[in-house]
Amino acid sequence: MPMLQINLLSGYNSGLKQRMTKALTAVIAGITRAKPEAISIWIHEVESFNYSRGGQARQPGIGASDPTLLVHDYLMAMEQRELDKAQGFLGENFVMTFPGSGNLTSLSQLVEWSKGRYRFVTKTLISTNVAYEMDKVVVFVNGTLAGEWPDGTAFDGVRFIDRFEICDDRLLRQDVWNDLATVQP
Amino acid sequence: MPMLQINLLSGYNSGLKQRMTKALTAVIAGITRAKPEAISIWIHEVESFNYSRGGQARQPGIGASDPTLLVHDYLMAMEQRELDKAQGFLGENFVMTFPGSGNLTSLSQLVEWSKGRYRFVTKTLISTNVAYEMDKVVVFVNGTLAGEWPDGTAFDGVRFIDRFEICDDRLLRQDVWNDLATVQP
Amino acid sequence: MPMLQINLLSGYNSGLKQRMTKALTAVIAGITRAKPEAISIWIHEVESFNYSRGGQARQPGIGASDPTLLVHDYLMAMEQRELDKAQGFLGENFVMTFPGSGNLTSLSQLVEWSKGRYRFVTKTLISTNVAYEMDKVVVFVNGTLAGEWPDGTAFDGVRFIDRFEICDDRLLRQDVWNDLATVQP
Amino acid sequence: MPMLQINLLSGYNSGLKQRMTKALTAVIAGITRAKPEAISIWIHEVESFNYSRGGQARQPGIGASDPTLLVHDYLMAMEQRELDKAQGFLGENFVMTFPGSGNLTSLSQLVEWSKGRYRFVTKTLISTNVAYEMDKVVVFVNGTLAGEWPDGTAFDGVRFIDRFEICDDRLLRQDVWNDLATVQP
Amino acid sequence: MPMLQINLLSGYNSGLKQRMTKALTAVIAGITRAKPEAISIWIHEVESFNYSRGGQARQPGIGASDPTLLVHDYLMAMEQRELDKAQGFLGENFVMTFPGSGNLTSLSQLVEWSKGRYRFVTKTLISTNVAYEMDKVVVFVNGTLAGEWPDGTAFDGVRFIDRFEICDDRLLRQDVWNDLATVQP
Amino acid sequence: MPMLQINLLSGYNSGLKQRMTKALTAVIAGITRAKPEAISIWIHEVESFNYSRGGQARQPGIGASDPTLLVHDYLMAMEQRELDKAQGFLGENFVMTFPGSGNLTSLSQLVEWSKGRYRFVTKTLISTNVAYEMDKVVVFVNGTLAGEWPDGTAFDGVRFIDRFEICDDRLLRQDVWNDLATVQP
Repeated sequence: MPMLQINLLSGYNSGLKQRMTKALTAVIAGITRAKPEAISIWIHEVESFNYSRGGQARQPGIGASDPTLLVHDYLMAMEQRELDKAQGFLGENFVMTFPGSGNLTSLSQLVEWSKGRYRFVTKTLISTNVAYEMDKVVVFVNGTLAGEWPDGTAFDGVRFIDRFEICDDRLLRQDVWNDLATVQP
Repeated sequence: MPMLQINLLSGYNSGLKQRMTKALTAVIAGITRAKPEAISIWIHEVESFNYSRGGQARQPGIGASDPTLLVHDYLMAMEQRELDKAQGFLGENFVMTFPGSGNLTSLSQLVEWSKGRYRFVTKTLISTNVAYEMDKVVVFVNGTLAGEWPDGTAFDGVRFIDRFEICDDRLLRQDVWNDLATVQP
Repeated sequence: MPMLQINLLSGYNSGLKQRMTKALTAVIAGITRAKPEAISIWIHEVESFNYSRGGQARQPGIGASDPTLLVHDYLMAMEQRELDKAQGFLGENFVMTFPGSGNLTSLSQLVEWSKGRYRFVTKTLISTNVAYEMDKVVVFVNGTLAGEWPDGTAFDGVRFIDRFEICDDRLLRQDVWNDLATVQP
Repeated sequence: MPMLQINLLSGYNSGLKQRMTKALTAVIAGITRAKPEAISIWIHEVESFNYSRGGQARQPGIGASDPTLLVHDYLMAMEQRELDKAQGFLGENFVMTFPGSGNLTSLSQLVEWSKGRYRFVTKTLISTNVAYEMDKVVVFVNGTLAGEWPDGTAFDGVRFIDRFEICDDRLLRQDVWNDLATVQP
Repeated sequence: MPMLQINLLSGYNSGLKQRMTKALTAVIAGITRAKPEAISIWIHEVESFNYSRGGQARQPGIGASDPTLLVHDYLMAMEQRELDKAQGFLGENFVMTFPGSGNLTSLSQLVEWSKGRYRFVTKTLISTNVAYEMDKVVVFVNGTLAGEWPDGTAFDGVRFIDRFEICDDRLLRQDVWNDLATVQP
Repeated sequence: MPMLQINLLSGYNSGLKQRMTKALTAVIAGITRAKPEAISIWIHEVESFNYSRGGQARQPGIGASDPTLLVHDYLMAMEQRELDKAQGFLGENFVMTFPGSGNLTSLSQLVEWSKGRYRFVTKTLISTNVAYEMDKVVVFVNGTLAGEWPDGTAFDGVRFIDRFEICDDRLLRQDVWNDLATVQP
């Protein structure tokens, strides 16, 4: 039964608004335990000249990209070793950790580190979850890995989870856990 | 600048409402890239007899517990091997996976499985993140493990992440990843 | 899906507000063809000093009685020939018409007119409907009559409908139709 | 002084909205006894993509026809014995009753029944009232009948009232009362 | 933190709405001592057919001109002795007073009265303030006068203040105070 | 017809809210030319824990004193030469100007300056107007002076206007104009 009304400056696209209403509905449902179907949201869009703060008209912001798309696109680029494309998703001071890797600060460092560990690896996703924090968006992707060991033998069904911190549409941090060490030959 | 107004039946406690406004603010900030300080939320509480759906007055729901507290309390109980207390947090059909464990369906099964792997383990938390999905709440906890191997030697600083699925204030699923396999003697 | 919010000065009782939300829901349902369960209404009650028109605080009005109760009570009083009680429901210039009676302007005139037509009559109600007009409330009651003819023989199942005009909690007009003429001996 | 705000999906026509604001105003006036001029209504129309329930955008419904027009058109068609046209206004399982007729279930049955009662009859309307119920709309029309008896003599000024139940823009039931039996030769 | 929402019929221009949000923000700031930057205003514009009072759609009013522009334009016209233009700003029964002049009721009377007092005078404005009263708008302009005495000697830096009453975009009254008498030769 | 709704943290007193609704009504009336009686304002008071900005609950501010009372009380204290009391109304860096006085920065300086100009002076107020600016409130008082010249002869009916700048409930500036110079012996 909770009902939300959002006053919003005009200018955000439908996709963003749909992401927003879904995420808000999920928050309300999760916290009040109301059923999602009982939660309605109305967005009242207002032209820039019909809003003022401090007596001044204001402009809408840019809006963020879909963080799950951003992560999925990055993971796909990495899987296909399109490092330039993948680099485009990263913020300054990007840091990543893998099991046993310590902090890595560049994709080339990662590629170097992963040599000798596996020939290639592909990911099958089970869940993607988004946690909104005040200062960042955290995306979690978990599923299973398949690939080949350096000796050419195959593996699959290896559990993994990736944790990404995103700010201003750029990845700031990637932390990876997986079970490769428990199954490696 | 986005402004939310929530019509809500009276009866939810302040803690719940505070969790809700924080979570909603973070969603709005994450999606519109507005600064949290620019996002205001007003809750208009309405007595039961001042709300109707289908011409009928309605009662407020129960509200959910704080999912991060629930997870932290469960983890503490497990760390201290208070299995009865820990059991109280679990829903029916609870399932958990650990590196190499496959599906475990009871805490006693877990205790059995972990014997011979370590004498004990404690967790230092770095982050707790909550992702609200339509049908469940997913809580992620990551940090480092410390403890003793079966031979009594100590370890610490071992990366871990736990993923919990929660519905109706009960844990439905716990998935654990860590680097123990990469550091075990 | 239509959602109503009503700003209302505090002071109306719950019964009145419940009647109001039901009647408003029925209007919205009847006109938009939305299902009643999809129509929610929120009443925002505001203390007198938090409302102003023309810069002046205002007081809430008195509110009307339930018009169906008013009509039912009047009909019961008439059926039991409690004329003094029935008189209390009538406004000045009250007029009533019955089949063949022309305009009657007092209850005693009615009693006189009905003599020789039946010994007594009781009503079984099927429906009571309320139509809200800008300047009055119109209540319709239909059902069947039972009673005795002057010669003591009984009748029942005789269709009737009453139409009442109400203003300021007083009956202004009663118009009666029935099938007595088609069945009288 | 009561003030209504309606959140409504865009797409309903002006006529429907005008009928709605009038009917809502009359309800509020009738129940609170506020003067209609003191009752204001604001409709906030919202595009489909700016509304969500359960996190899903929704479409507006169809809206109902004006029930008084529907009844008036039906009555006109019947008066002019345009039975095919009149039939178009009827729902399945339509039932009608007239004084002494019992339940009639088709227009042809009615025409048959009325033969021998009058050559023709025309209606002069005094009032049309609409009562909105949760599951149907009830329209009442009262006024006077004029026409010719089977022997060619004229009558007029005969009181009548019709009661119609409407659902989904179709007449489900018509109940007629009049004073023909009290005046017939 | 105070947040205003204004329901307004569409049709007022942006300039008017901007003046309105500024003036409202200043009132809220002045009375609550909230900082203007913390005060947000949202105007919800509603088409004529989406508003009703007494069940009737209504049209927006005309809106007033900017009262400070009106006063400044009038003062400029007077300074340049464009009396016809200045006359266009005046309402019927316009009255003005100057130090020692008593009530003057026409611009020509003023010109006559000022002869022999100075050859010409120009105004340097310091502040323009607008006070909104229920039945009129009062504009205050203060600053300094410069000009020439009848003997051709110059003066400047002479304090003045003008008080204007405005209704329906016309000046109803002008009251002038200045220090010419304290400095005149 | 314009309708305002104000979301406000609970805690401001009725007097302040009444001043606010009056001042807002006057602004709306003055700018839209709607009649004050057609302008309604609803204050929705919200408890501190039902409002959040940046996800944090907030407290209401202090609220300002009535600026016209403040000015009237100050003027009364000055008229009665209660300088200590008058001093209490002044902010730091208070400045005042009178005809021919230049900037005076203390009440004692004023008393000194006025000696030899009049024995005493009293004010009869005609109008008090308040102009709300973003950073201050400006109050104007005009009317007539009466008193005695140093030689004991009386004067009255002398036009004056005072302009006060107020911030945080303290007078920052007083500027006085009057016609004493035009009438002094």
